[in-house]
Formats: sequence, structure tokens, C-alpha cells
Amino acid sequence: MNINPTMPYANLIQPGDNPDLTKERKTASFNLWKMQCFVYEGEEVVKRRKEILEFVQSTPEFNDEIPAEFLSREEVVDRGARKAVVMTNKADAIDTSDFFGEGMYYQSLVIGRDLHSMSLHYIMFMPTIQGQSDDDQMDEWMGPTAARAFLGTFAQTELGHGSNLTKLEATATYDPKTEEFVLHTPTLTATKWWPGGLGKSCNVAVVMAQLYTNGQCKGPHPFFVPLRDPETHMPMKGVTLGDIGPKFGINGSDNGFLIFDHYRIPRRNMFMRFSKVLPDGTYVAPPHAKLGFGTMVFVRSIMIKDQATQLGAAAVIGIRYSAVRRQGEINEGAGEVQVIDYRTQQFRLLPQLARAFAFLFAAYEIKTLYLNVTEQIGTGNMDLLAELHAVSSGLKAVVSWETAQGVEQLRLACGGHGYSRASAFPDIYTYAVGGCTYEGENIVMLLQVARFLMKCAKEVRIGNAKLADIGAYIAKTDSGKSHIRSWRQCSDEDIIHDFEAVARRMIFASYDRLKSFETTMTKKEAWNKCSIDLCKTARVRELCEL
Amino acid sequence: MNINPTMPYANLIQPGDNPDLTKERKTASFNLWKMQCFVYEGEEVVKRRKEILEFVQSTPEFNDEIPAEFLSREEVVDRGARKAVVMTNKADAIDTSDFFGEGMYYQSLVIGRDLHSMSLHYIMFMPTIQGQSDDDQMDEWMGPTAARAFLGTFAQTELGHGSNLTKLEATATYDPKTEEFVLHTPTLTATKWWPGGLGKSCNVAVVMAQLYTNGQCKGPHPFFVPLRDPETHMPMKGVTLGDIGPKFGINGSDNGFLIFDHYRIPRRNMFMRFSKVLPDGTYVAPPHAKLGFGTMVFVRSIMIKDQATQLGAAAVIGIRYSAVRRQGEINEGAGEVQVIDYRTQQFRLLPQLARAFAFLFAAYEIKTLYLNVTEQIGTGNMDLLAELHAVSSGLKAVVSWETAQGVEQLRLACGGHGYSRASAFPDIYTYAVGGCTYEGENIVMLLQVARFLMKCAKEVRIGNAKLADIGAYIAKTDSGKSHIRSWRQCSDEDIIHDFEAVARRMIFASYDRLKSFETTMTKKEAWNKCSIDLCKTARVRELCEL
Ligand SMILES: Cc1cc2nc3c(=O)[nH]c(=O)nc-3n(C[C@H](O)[C@H](O)[C@H](O)COP(=O)(O)OP(=O)(O)OC[C@H]3O[C@@H](n4cnc5c(N)ncnc54)[C@H](O)[C@@H]3O)c2cc1C
Ligand SMILES: Cc1cc2nc3c(=O)[nH]c(=O)nc-3n(C[C@H](O)[C@H](O)[C@H](O)COP(=O)(O)OP(=O)(O)OC[C@H]3O[C@@H](n4cnc5c(N)ncnc54)[C@H](O)[C@@H]3O)c2cc1C
Repeated sequence: MNINPTMPYANLIQPGDNPDLTKERKTASFNLWKMQCFVYEGEEVVKRRKEILEFVQSTPEFNDEIPAEFLSREEVVDRGARKAVVMTNKADAIDTSDFFGEGMYYQSLVIGRDLHSMSLHYIMFMPTIQGQSDDDQMDEWMGPTAARAFLGTFAQTELGHGSNLTKLEATATYDPKTEEFVLHTPTLTATKWWPGGLGKSCNVAVVMAQLYTNGQCKGPHPFFVPLRDPETHMPMKGVTLGDIGPKFGINGSDNGFLIFDHYRIPRRNMFMRFSKVLPDGTYVAPPHAKLGFGTMVFVRSIMIKDQATQLGAAAVIGIRYSAVRRQGEINEGAGEVQVIDYRTQQFRLLPQLARAFAFLFAAYEIKTLYLNVTEQIGTGNMDLLAELHAVSSGLKAVVSWETAQGVEQLRLACGGHGYSRASAFPDIYTYAVGGCTYEGENIVMLLQVARFLMKCAKEVRIGNAKLADIGAYIAKTDSGKSHIRSWRQCSDEDIIHDFEAVARRMIFASYDRLKSFETTMTKKEAWNKCSIDLCKTARVRELCEL
Repeated sequence: MNINPTMPYANLIQPGDNPDLTKERKTASFNLWKMQCFVYEGEEVVKRRKEILEFVQSTPEFNDEIPAEFLSREEVVDRGARKAVVMTNKADAIDTSDFFGEGMYYQSLVIGRDLHSMSLHYIMFMPTIQGQSDDDQMDEWMGPTAARAFLGTFAQTELGHGSNLTKLEATATYDPKTEEFVLHTPTLTATKWWPGGLGKSCNVAVVMAQLYTNGQCKGPHPFFVPLRDPETHMPMKGVTLGDIGPKFGINGSDNGFLIFDHYRIPRRNMFMRFSKVLPDGTYVAPPHAKLGFGTMVFVRSIMIKDQATQLGAAAVIGIRYSAVRRQGEINEGAGEVQVIDYRTQQFRLLPQLARAFAFLFAAYEIKTLYLNVTEQIGTGNMDLLAELHAVSSGLKAVVSWETAQGVEQLRLACGGHGYSRASAFPDIYTYAVGGCTYEGENIVMLLQVARFLMKCAKEVRIGNAKLADIGAYIAKTDSGKSHIRSWRQCSDEDIIHDFEAVARRMIFASYDRLKSFETTMTKKEAWNKCSIDLCKTARVRELCEL
């Protein structure tokens, strides 16, 4: 591929292309190279992307003859595992410290959307080792983890509990006599359910379980738990596990279930960077409860970028197809038109492209904010972290939902061909829509944002608001009148002003409604009664962020 | 199963049920038996449904040990074919003349949503034989078709053309010397693409091709075309065919492609009930162009019922799960609540149930209207047919889209479990959403409705409207003021009045906008420019119908 910054479309128009596509490309009113550099944050990044692409295309192990959709699920899992091994063995091809950029791109090129049995190892297991281990644990676990001697997953969700983690039922009871924790699954609903890679592949897991010591429950804590014999790969005695079966998508990951029957692990298998249990069973609490928020914000920024990328991919397929597809006439006898010339088709396609850009830039913004806030934490200011956490949770919900809807609209815009897996749309959709559920169920996320907003509203009302840049508009006073005089000549500032005004009005309207309900019922019942409004409020607030 | 009409929930509450479910069922404010009879149109129908259900449950060939989602696609196609054979061999279990009722129910119980390689044989091939053959053709083809000696499909869509059927490219050129038609695929885009069951199973097809005779093109006509050797099942010489690969859903049907290379069939293989080609090549045109509309209306009524049933099934799963699922607290310390107690959850679930009912009743209504109009056709009144055709096309579009959206909302409301194929949601969705594309792409359908509405508007304006019951409201005059004073006390009539008023206002607003555009551009360009508005207008008009 030939990158020539002075020739705007030199690297896209190829001899032999469909002429309709070339015609459309030639009408571009912007320099494609500049646009690429803008979208991907710099010339260097774009060049690196080309290099990574060429590396993947030229590595035989990454290029399969048979597309994944023709394989059985078992073959998909097998292939995914094989490729994931090659991918990590050849990780020198990328800057591995840049997961947000090169890492995600490299993985998406190699693995596609079925994911693989080691996805959780890299996304959740390894970061937990890094974030939750004390120094000795780090020395012991990190080497084998990086070398894949341990293949790990993250086992939190249970058959009975996903959103309400305080009620997880699996227990880890400390036995000071043997200095061990006894892991147990007391009920059917306490079965761990969903962890990626657990079904057939992983031999260890981070397990979240209710910590009991000296007869007291200390809430859910993470434990490092060996699950399979490193020699035979058979489950350890006291451990029952398996695959939870086929899913809507992401079938390269063997999501699994896990049951403990009084299974013992050494005391030091509790992650001890923050909380500790001493040999005699004494519990030592962590210094700060909110320290975990930082990682969550970073993971969300990655998720938002990933969703934007999925919507962007779908938009590219849908728009290109609509330029190539000719169907029906606008002016009789003038020949069939490219379907992109239909207004209805433009209405289906173009807003999705705009959304993909908005979501991508929001992901960059969150990442930058995260880095700034991480710096400020040094000064002990935790409030900003909470605010950023709320914004990123809400954005995750709004972005994943609008991405899912957008992908489907783009798929439908390709008519029958969009229904074929050859179009890639079915896989994009089932992959992307999973994001509405994992990393925090969307409605639960919106309600969290609403809770945060009601706290802000209260503080503004009592004149005590300490809002960072992100939420400062909530405290602004303003006539509430639109700044937009005509849609032909309004500035970006006018639009942002109006979005903020609408969000502010909804926030205080919800707040007043909530307060009035609270006079006749419990606060919690009032909350429930207002919750639909509150979700809508949270949605508008996040759109405002975008 | 025990049906006792005097005990309202005797046939649903069973010992051993989840107590939360039983609790909810006991609070029903209506008699379940009466409700069932109302929904399914009579006591007899409900009793027959139970009988059919028991028959299917007690027939070993219909009950598989391994659920379909654990099979490879090839195994799914195999199983579907095997079951379809047993199903038709045991068709005595149902009243086969009642496809709208017993037929659809029986098939859905036996086959589920993957369909099977003979779906098109029954849904499209056999009805075409019945509707398009002359008496001699009927005698020749109907017997073997019913006996499955012919296994047929319907090959209309091409790689290049689906919506715009006038531009189909496959040709059938009459050769008077041999009294044969020569079928040919002149371009890659003329390849037939999508016909169900064509990939591996069918040996004949109804093929739509441009009829050429005496050097003139007479437009697309249907032909009866043998595709495979009845002995060896190998493609005939001049015929190339195969499977088009995995799809979003409906993978039990082997949709296929088909290419002709100057393939000859006898003159009498053209369906000759309406048009004819005489031995010397003379073309005889059909008496009425719109006669085909009737069947399409009936097929749409079946499709709308099917969509309603899918949405209903999803609503039942989502609502029952939400009664059983406990997650989080409303009042602290009062224990985890059933998620159905959350307002946000109710907002996700209950509108879908209401829609399922509305869509089902709309399907009944269309069927009844169809029967009435069929009677009236005797009197030569074709206008009503066109109106009914427009209504049913639009309803198909609105119902299939709202069903797809509703099913996804219900799936997401079940959290992680909704992502598992064990929940049935992934299969309901991929099956139902196909309905947005086949039997007329939804946007194309809405534009057809809009065209009809603009014709009505014009007729009303020039005082020349002849509108049947369905569309009479378009000609009504009214202040346009809402009849609704408070949402607590408005009647059904008030709501219908208001829906009609909104639809009417939009219809005439669109009409005026269209006319004003027509002063500065061609009619067709003006149409395109207004088409988003027009689609919205058509949508509201169909909602009004509901
Ligand atoms: C593809 C995929 C991969 C996954 N991978 C992993 C993994 O590797 N490891 C792991 O531990 N887990 C994993 N999960 C599980 C995932 O984290 C949970 O499914 C998710 O947290 C949602 O929880 P839930 O399923 O319990 O939904 P529920 O909480 O049961 O949600 C059901 C419904 O109840 C509503 N609801 C729940 N609580 C409230 C409330 N307080 N107020 C109002 N409404 C409420 C929700 O809005 C939703 O409509 C995965 C899930 C998926 C789909
Ligand atoms: C599951 C499934 C089963 C099928 N089974 C069969 C079968 O058995 N036999 C068979 O013959 N076919 C079958 N089909 C094909 C089906 O009938 C076509 O896919 C359908 O008619 C849509 O046509 P298309 O794919 O050409 O879409 P297109 O017409 O190419 O639509 C693409 C886009 O262009 C837009 N568009 C097209 N025309 C216009 C216009 N005039 N104005 C504005 N916008 C326009 C559409 O809105 C859409 O957004 C099947 C399809 C599916 C998905």
C-alpha cells in the first residue's frame, strides 16, 4: 500500500475498483490523509496502523482459507485459541504498552469479533494481577501469567447475581487452623456463570467471593484460584466447571460455569494489595474505597472506542454498498440510481457515520480526562474521579445502545445481502450489542448516572456544588432560551448551549418531582417511581457530553 | 394438561412452579380461559391448540435430545428436512386447509425458527402452482408436488435485483422452432440469489424471468423449471446451483443461488393461467393486472400474525423471567425485589406485550378484510383491493420493525441470560427481523403506502375520493383539536379520533410540500426529496390502523 500524503485518495482508489465507488471517492471535499490523521490522532499512528495491517496480512498463521462462519463452534474456539497464541508470541509487532491504540487494532485484525479463549486473560485477569497483588504476589504470579503458564479468567457474575454484586453468594471462609480459605458454592444460584474462557481453556481464575473471617462477612473480595491440574488440565477436586453453551455472538470465547465444594486455597491466594486477612484471621480494611474506579474508567474508555469502531465499520460497509448498489429509478428512463441517492437511504446511513465519529472523539476525551484525573489524585482530590466515573458509565450505556441500533439500521439498509453473514453485519451486531449488557447493564448504569445527577442538583440547590469542568454547566444560570435562530446558521457553541440547557432543565425537573414524591413515600420508592424520567434525564445528559 | 374453563388459571399453575411466578399468576384480574378464547378467536381453537400441542409433544420424531443451537449448520438442515417430512406425513393431525391457524401453529411447534428446506415448497411453490397453472398444468404438477416428488422453491430475487423486480435480468426466450423457452443468466448480477431450499434440497423451482418472444420483451413471468435430475439429484446440464452460506438466522433453510446457461424447457412449462405464449410465439396478455394482489394480502396477514406471535413469545419469556429474577432492593433491608417491580423494567416489558396484542388483532382484521374484499371482487370492484394491498404492505413494514425492536428490548431486559441462546431470544430476533427485508423491503413498502396516500390526498382535494372504510378518515373534516382532556379518562374513540387527526394532518402537509417542490423540479425528484417525511407519514397512518 502506497501512502502519499500529497495525493489525497492515492491509498484508497485502486485500479479495478467499482466505478461508482471511484466516482464517489473522487468527489471527496477533504484531504483523506489529513482526515485519517485527525481521526486517528496523528500521522505517526496512521503509519503504524498501515504497518500493523501489512504485518497481519503477510503472516500466514493469521490468514485462514475458510471464514469462521463456516466452522462449528468447537472449531471456532480452537482456531481462536491457536491464533491468540500466535498473536501474543508475535506481540513484538506492536507497542504492547499502548493497548488503547495498537493493541486493540492488532487484536481486532487477527481475531475479529468471535474473540478467543484468552480474551479475559488479557482484558481482566492480567490487569487484576497487576492492580490487586501485593509485591510478593506480583513476583509469584506475574511471570507465569505473562508466559501463559497460568491461563486466567475473571469469575464474578453468578447465575443469580450480575448487577447487584453485594449479594454474590459464593463464600470464601477463612480457616485459621490451616491458614486456608474454603471456597464454597452454597446454592445453585451461587454458581459462577459467564466468565470468558472458563468453559474449556482456563486453569486459574480471579474469583469474587464473600469473605468470612472470625465469623464476620466482609463483603466480596478477589481470590486467585487454581481450577485445573496444570499437568492433566482436569478440574481440581472440589471444582466443577464447564461451558455455558452457544450465545448470540462472541462464540470464540468459551464462557463457562464454576461450582466449588469446600475447595481450599492458601491464605496468600487472597489478593492483598488493599485488604488483608492476617494469619490469625484479623481483617485489615483498604485505605480508600474508590481506588478501583480509575481502572473502570479506563476500561470504559476502551469499550467506547471499541463500540465507535464497530459502528464505523458498519457505516463503511453500508455506505460503500449503497454507492455500488443500483436499484430503481428516480427519474423515469434515466436508468437505475445508486441507492445512496435516495433520501430515505441517506437518512438511514449518514447519521450513523456522524455518531461513529462523535463516539470515537468521546472515547479520546474520556481517556484524556482519565489521565488528568489520575494526576490530580496525587493531590487527594477524589471528587473528580467520582464525576468522571459517572460520566463514563453513562457514556458506555448511551454509546453501546446507539451503536447497536445504528448497526442494525445499516444492516437493514443493505437489504437481503445484510442478512447474509458474508456482509459481516450479523457478527458486528451480535458482538457490539453484548456491550449493552456486560461491564454494567445499561439501565443500571443510567440509574447510577441519575443518582449522581440528583446529588449534584441537591448541592446546587443548597449552594454547595463543587463540580468539575465536565458537570459545571449544571450550576450555570441561564434564561433557558434557545440560542439557535435558524438551523442554517447556528454555531457549535449554540448547539452545546442548548443541549446543556435542556439537560439542566430535565435534571431539576426530575429533582423536584423526586422531592415531591418523597413527601408521601420512602426515598427509595420515590426513586423507583421517577426512574423512567431519571433514565431519560441521564440519557440527555450523556448526549450533551457527546 | 387440564382445561377447566371455570378455574381461571388451572391450566397454568402447576405444583413445583417458582413461587414468585405463582404469586403473580394469582393476581390476574381476568379469567385466563376467557382471555385465551378471546385472543385465539374461540373456545374451539384453544382446545384444538392443546390437542395439537399434545400430539407434537407425544410424537417421538418431533422431540430431539440435543437442542438445535448445539448442531452444525449441516446438521440443522438435515434435522429440519427430516422433521418436515414427518410433519407433512402426519399432517392429518391438523386441519390443513386452515394454514392461518392450525398450519402455522403446528409448523412452529415442530420446526421452530430455523425453518427447513421445504419451507418454500409449502409457502411459495405450492401456492404458485395452485394460483398460476391452467387446468392441464394443474393436473400434471399438483399431484407430484403434494406427494413431494417435486421439491420446489421460488426463485425471483437476483444478486442484482430484489426490490426493483421490473429490472430482473434472467431471460426466458421463446424458440418457436423447438417450441421451447431458453433460460439464461446473461450477467453475474442475473444470478438468482436467496431462494429458500435451493442450495441442496429442491429439484424444481418457479423461476421469474423476462419473457422474450418474437423479439419483444413482455416483462417478468413465472416458469416451472426442473433443476436436478430426479434420479441422481445432480444439477441438470445448463444449470449451476449451490448454497449461499450462513445467515443471521433461519439456518435450517438452505438458501441458494442459480445460474442458467441456455437451458431449455418446453413451452408448456410457462405458467399459463393468466398470460400465454402460443406455439407460434404469439403472446396473450392477462385480463387483469392486479389479480395477484389478493394472494399477497393473504401472505401479509400470515406474516403479521407470525410477527405478533414472535413478539408475544418474547414478551412471555421476558415478563416471566422478570417475575422470577430478584436483583437489588427498592427499600433497603427489605430484601431483593423481583426486577419486574422496577418502573424501568416495566417500561421495557409491558409496551411490547400491548404491541403483540395489537399486531395479532391487526392480522385478524386484515384476514377478515381480505375475505370481504375477495367477495366484492365478484362485483368487479378492484379499488378496495388496491387500498387493502396498501394497508397490508404498510402494516407489514411497521409491525415487523416494531417487533424486531421489541424483541431486542425484551432480550436486553433479561440481562446476561438474554444473550445466551438458551433464552431463545437470539433465535427469535434473527428470525423475526428477517421480516423487515423479505416480502418487500420495509422502506420500499412505506414509500408504496405514501404513494397511495398522496393519491388519496389528491382525490380528496379535487373532491373525487372513493375511499373504503379503511381510509375514509382521510376525507373527514374536523377541527383537528384533540379529543383527549386527561389521560385518565379518555375513551378508545378519543384516541382513534386523535390518531386519525394526526395522520390526516401529516398526509396533507406532505402532499402540500410535495406539490410545492414539484414547481421547481421533476415529480420524481420532488418525491425523493419528500420521502423521509412521506415514510413518517405512512408510519403514522399505519399506527392509526393499529
Ligand atoms: C457476552 C458476555 C460476556 C460476559 N463475560 C463475563 C465474564 O467474563 N465474567 C463475569 O463475571 N461476568 C461476565 N458477564 C456477565 C455480565 O457481567 C452480566 O450479565 C451483567 O453484569 C448484567 O447482570 P445480570 O445478567 O445479572 O442482569 P440483571 O441484573 O439480572 O438484569 C436484568 C434486568 O433487571 C434490571 N435491573 C437489575 N437491577 C436493577 C436495579 N437496581 N434497578 C432497576 N433495574 C434493575 C436490568 O436493567 C435488566 O433489565 C458476561 C455477560 C455477557 C453477555
Ligand atoms: C431470509 C431471507 C429469505 C429470502 N428468501 C427468498 C426466496 O425464497 N426467494 C426469493 O426470490 N427471494 C428471497 N429473499 C430475497 C428478498 O426478497 C429480497 O432481499 C428483498 O426483496 C429486498 O431486496 P434487495 O435485497 O434487493 O434490497 P435492495 O432493494 O437492494 O435494498 C437496499 C436498500 O435500498 C433501498 N431501496 C431500494 N429501492 C428503493 C427505492 N425505490 N426507493 C428508496 N429506497 C430504495 C432499500 O430501502 C434498502 O435500504 C430472501 C431474503 C431474506 C433476507
